[in-house]
Amino acid sequence: MASSEHISKQFDADLEAVRTRVLHMGGFVEEQIEKAIEALTTGNESLIENIIADDHRVNAMEVSIDEICSQIIARRQPAAGDLRMIMTVIKTITDLERIGDEAEKIARMAKLIYQTDRMHMPRFVEIRHVAHIALEMLHKSLDAFARLDLTAAAQVVREDEKVDEEFRSIMRQLITFMMEDPRKISTALEILFIAKAVERIGDHAKNMSEYVVYMVKGRDVRHVTVEEIEREVRD
Amino acid sequence: MASSEHISKQFDADLEAVRTRVLHMGGFVEEQIEKAIEALTTGNESLIENIIADDHRVNAMEVSIDEICSQIIARRQPAAGDLRMIMTVIKTITDLERIGDEAEKIARMAKLIYQTDRMHMPRFVEIRHVAHIALEMLHKSLDAFARLDLTAAAQVVREDEKVDEEFRSIMRQLITFMMEDPRKISTALEILFIAKAVERIGDHAKNMSEYVVYMVKGRDVRHVTVEEIEREVRD
Repeated sequence: MASSEHISKQFDADLEAVRTRVLHMGGFVEEQIEKAIEALTTGNESLIENIIADDHRVNAMEVSIDEICSQIIARRQPAAGDLRMIMTVIKTITDLERIGDEAEKIARMAKLIYQTDRMHMPRFVEIRHVAHIALEMLHKSLDAFARLDLTAAAQVVREDEKVDEEFRSIMRQLITFMMEDPRKISTALEILFIAKAVERIGDHAKNMSEYVVYMVKGRDVRHVTVEEIEREVRD
Repeated sequence: MASSEHISKQFDADLEAVRTRVLHMGGFVEEQIEKAIEALTTGNESLIENIIADDHRVNAMEVSIDEICSQIIARRQPAAGDLRMIMTVIKTITDLERIGDEAEKIARMAKLIYQTDRMHMPRFVEIRHVAHIALEMLHKSLDAFARLDLTAAAQVVREDEKVDEEFRSIMRQLITFMMEDPRKISTALEILFIAKAVERIGDHAKNMSEYVVYMVKGRDVRHVTVEEIEREVRD
């Protein structure tokens, strides 16, 4: 293991601390999404305000972890696997922060929808379904990061195709809904933006899993096919 | 200047080379957007296929610059301003790559629209207008990066508010258009997604300008108000 080569035990402690912080940030972002899904179901106003108010905490975590990574680079001159871990963290927290933004957007859309039109929410069952898939992808990506689990990482990349397909299906259904009742077009668009936010959460979770493959295998798989990634993690 | 402190002239050359590569990647992404705007106007099929086919070049540039940044960190142990520059590059190329994705999306939407409905393209004038603002923001962000120009960086952050406002205005107009002619809902949604892609290009350019402020001033301004950023760059 690379860690046995470290001159300084403090270095190991630094790396472990940064990993823990990423997982903590990830856990917090997962909660934001869970709350946003609940807000879609219930329209609970104080919950919605909570999600919106808490986004700054996600932002602060990103800034703080970036700062810690800079310090580790400046003081410890990480190389090989340690450096890949730091690079992975720098990329991962950007995606986590943007997932946090999507959770906030979903909360804001839920607020709009419940303010203007409490009845006839179309496609909410489907959106909750795909949102749970995206949440599961995020959870699995964080697990893959924590345990260096390449199989889980490859699964996430594969699952993103399912999320994209669900999004297209929801969009087709919403188009039909809008054509049947043009007075509901505004609401339908808000729902479409929620579906889009969920789809983006899937994209970010996929990015995070691709970084894990890079971290473990040293190969950058961001722009290769899912089949290649599956081959890479088997080897 | 920090560079005079470098023991190795090679280090200066490395930093200069990575800066040049970022600007080259940025120039290429600008061209992709310019072509995408032209594709919206003309529906030129070979142009559209070119944009789509060239996206992999943007991806390859991102992977390659990331690799170079890793090498510089491992070999040179950058600190202070040099390290902030490397961190800025790592973040910047992620946004540039995603701007490239948006250009590709615009091209794909243009293709769909011209295949299905050559007549009555609503809001194209407005979309071209806002796309030119977003393109200008990207150009200014790259200039700010090249010249360490904080005034330009702050302007970009301010201009993003204009792009967001234009997006909301286009959306309102599209809703009216859809209500008047529900048979055009599919096409209107494709146009809405183009407007959304343009809005995201603005967001990414804003991110890039915020990194420039961090690089020059050492303060992370990603999640502060535009007024605070304007104060920061004046000081």
